Amino acid sequence: MDKATSRIFTENQLWSFMSEVFIRMGASQEDAYLATDVLLEADLRGIDSHGIARLSGYVRLWEAGRINMKPQIKIVRETAAAATVDGDGGLGLVVAAHAMNIAIKKASATGVGMVSVCNSNHFGVASYHAMKAIPHHMIGMSMTNASPLVTPTLGKERMLGTNPHCWVFPAREYDPVVIDMASAAAANGKLEIAERKGTELPNGWALDADGAPSNDPSILKKGGSLLPLGSTYEMGSHKGYGMAAVADILSGVLSGGNFGPWVPPFVAFLQPPADPVGKGIGHFLTAMRIDAFRDLDEYYQGIDTWIRRFKATTPIDPAEPVLIHGELEQREYRVRKKNGIPINAKVVADMEALAEKFKITL
Amino acid sequence: MDKATSRIFTENQLWSFMSEVFIRMGASQEDAYLATDVLLEADLRGIDSHGIARLSGYVRLWEAGRINMKPQIKIVRETAAAATVDGDGGLGLVVAAHAMNIAIKKASATGVGMVSVCNSNHFGVASYHAMKAIPHHMIGMSMTNASPLVTPTLGKERMLGTNPHCWVFPAREYDPVVIDMASAAAANGKLEIAERKGTELPNGWALDADGAPSNDPSILKKGGSLLPLGSTYEMGSHKGYGMAAVADILSGVLSGGNFGPWVPPFVAFLQPPADPVGKGIGHFLTAMRIDAFRDLDEYYQGIDTWIRRFKATTPIDPAEPVLIHGELEQREYRVRKKNGIPINAKVVADMEALAEKFKITL
Repeated sequence: MDKATSRIFTENQLWSFMSEVFIRMGASQEDAYLATDVLLEADLRGIDSHGIARLSGYVRLWEAGRINMKPQIKIVRETAAAATVDGDGGLGLVVAAHAMNIAIKKASATGVGMVSVCNSNHFGVASYHAMKAIPHHMIGMSMTNASPLVTPTLGKERMLGTNPHCWVFPAREYDPVVIDMASAAAANGKLEIAERKGTELPNGWALDADGAPSNDPSILKKGGSLLPLGSTYEMGSHKGYGMAAVADILSGVLSGGNFGPWVPPFVAFLQPPADPVGKGIGHFLTAMRIDAFRDLDEYYQGIDTWIRRFKATTPIDPAEPVLIHGELEQREYRVRKKNGIPINAKVVADMEALAEKFKITL
Repeated sequence: MDKATSRIFTENQLWSFMSEVFIRMGASQEDAYLATDVLLEADLRGIDSHGIARLSGYVRLWEAGRINMKPQIKIVRETAAAATVDGDGGLGLVVAAHAMNIAIKKASATGVGMVSVCNSNHFGVASYHAMKAIPHHMIGMSMTNASPLVTPTLGKERMLGTNPHCWVFPAREYDPVVIDMASAAAANGKLEIAERKGTELPNGWALDADGAPSNDPSILKKGGSLLPLGSTYEMGSHKGYGMAAVADILSGVLSGGNFGPWVPPFVAFLQPPADPVGKGIGHFLTAMRIDAFRDLDEYYQGIDTWIRRFKATTPIDPAEPVLIHGELEQREYRVRKKNGIPINAKVVADMEALAEKFKITL
C-alpha cells in the first residue's frame, strides 16, 4: 500500500460505514453486519482487493437489479452430512456465511458437513468462510466459481474464474494455517496493481486475444485471458486448469448454479449470459470435525509440530525464511487492529461517492 | 514410450505375473488381486510410472521389512461420515482401496464419507482410488503424502512429497472427468525420463542443493529439490506449496501418520527417519453421493454440458484442441485394452529378475 496515496481509517469507522451502506441497500441488520464482517476481515488481514474496495461493486450490481437484498436462503436438498443451498440471489457474502453454518452444524452431528450453493454471487474472500470452522475445532474448506477470465491449457478463451481453493487448519501454539489459493497464476487484482503502477506483467500470467503470451497489464480489456497456475503446459498449467475445474464443478454443476463461461460477471457493466445453464454463481463449503478423525490434543500437537518444522525449512536466503500460509495476513491483522486500516485514495473516492449517494457521513 | 526398447504384454500376462509376485510375498489372494488391479489399471491408462514399473520397488521395501503383507487394517476412530484407518503397515495399494470402500459406505448412508489413513505406504496412482466412486454415482477424491522431494517456496530443503490431489467426476455421455494432479511443477518420474534420454530439464522444475535453479536431470541425486507447482513466487509457487501442504496435513497430521520430512521414503535404499512423528505414510479419501446434493439426472446433464463446452474452447492451435482431464488416459486405455501394454525394456529386465527370484514363469 502506497502510504502517500492512502488514508487511515479505524476498524469502527469502516464497520459503521459499510453496515450503513448495506442497510440502505435494503439488507436486514443481521445481514448487513454479516456482509460487513466479511469485507472488514479482508481489510484487517491486508487482503485489500477483497475488502471495502469491493463495496461499490456490490452497490452497482444491486443497482443493476442483480442482488436480492431480502433473500430467502433455503436448503433445497439434504442428507445428514450434505446439503444444497439456494441463495435466492442474495449477497454472496451472506449466502456463503449461512451455508458454512450449515456445514458446521452437519459436521457437529456426523463428523463432516459439505454444502454446495447455487443462486449466489461474489462471496468475498474465501478464507473468511473456511476460518469460521476454527472455533469449533474443525478444518474448514471453501471454494467458489467466479467471472470467467482464465483460459484452459491449450485454449485462448475465458472459460473459468480464478476459482480459489481455501483450506484452513486450526493450530494451538501458532496461528491457524490458512491456505487460500486462486487457481490462476495471478488473480486479476495483481494485473490492476501493475496497470496502476504502469509496470509490465511478469511472464506466465496472461495471454493476448490471439493466445500469445502477453506482458500488457491492460490485456484483459483487450480480449486477453489469464493463465492457470503453472502458466505453461511444460510447467503444469493443466494442474491449475484442473484446480479451477474442481471448484467450478463442485460449486456450479453440483449445486445447480452456472458454471464455466456461463458464470455471471461480478462487474455490473457486463451482462450475464442470455442462456444461463443454472442459477447465479456457486460456492462449495466443507467443515470437518477434527475429533471425528483424531484425538484433539494429538491433532494440535501434530499441527504445531508441522508448523514449527516448516518454519525451520532451510531457506535459500537466510533473510527470507520460509512462510506458513496465512502468516503474513495474520501479521498484518495485528498491525491493522492496532494502527488502523490504510485505504487507497481511489477507494476513498469510491467511499465518498457512496456516502453522497446514500447521504451517509463518512 | 519408445517402441524399439519396449515389449508388448497382454493384460492377462501382467495380471498373472503381478498377482503371483504379491502372493509369493505373502499376500492373501484377495489382497494380491487388489494390489494387481491398482498397478494394472495405471498401465492400461498409460500412466507407466505407476504401474508394473513400481512392482520391484514394492518387493524391495518388503525385503527391507517395511511392508506387512498380512495387515490387520482397522478403523481406529469413526463417526457417521468420517473415519481414521490404521493400515498396519500393509501395502498402500490395498490399504487405500479398503479405506475408499469405507468412504463409499459412509457416503451411501450420510451423503459424504471422509477417511484419513495412517500406517500405510505408497498407494499407487491416486486416480484408481477416487475412480472407485464412479459406479456408485459418487464424486471421488484421493490425496496422499509421499517421500519428501519438494521444497516449500523460499526454501531449498526437501520437505514435501509430490503429494497429489485427485478429483473424479462421473459423467454419462462422456468419460468421467479425472483430475489427478501432483502438487509439484513436475513429478520425479519426468526427471527420470529426461535422465534416460539425456536431455536437460525445462526451467521451473528443480533447484540444486544451494537453491539455485537447475536444468540437470540428475539433480535429485546431488541434493537438489523439486519445485512446487507454479515454480517461482512470482508465478504462484506458494500455491503449489499450499496444495502439497493440504495433502500432507489431511493425510499425515489428521490421521496420525508421518508428515513433511518425516514421511518414510518409498525407495528401500533410503532409511526412514529415526525420529518418526507418526505411523507410516498417510492418505485421505473422500466419497460424495451426488444425489445427496442434486437430482442425479440434472447432475449428469450438467457435467455433460460442462465437458462438451470445455472441449469446444477456442484453441490456440486448431490442431491441438483443449483437453478434458482424463481424456488422454481414457484414449490410451482403449488402445491398450485392444493392442496390449508396451513395457519398457528396463522394466522388463526388472520383471525377469523378479521371475527368477520367485521362480515364476514370465
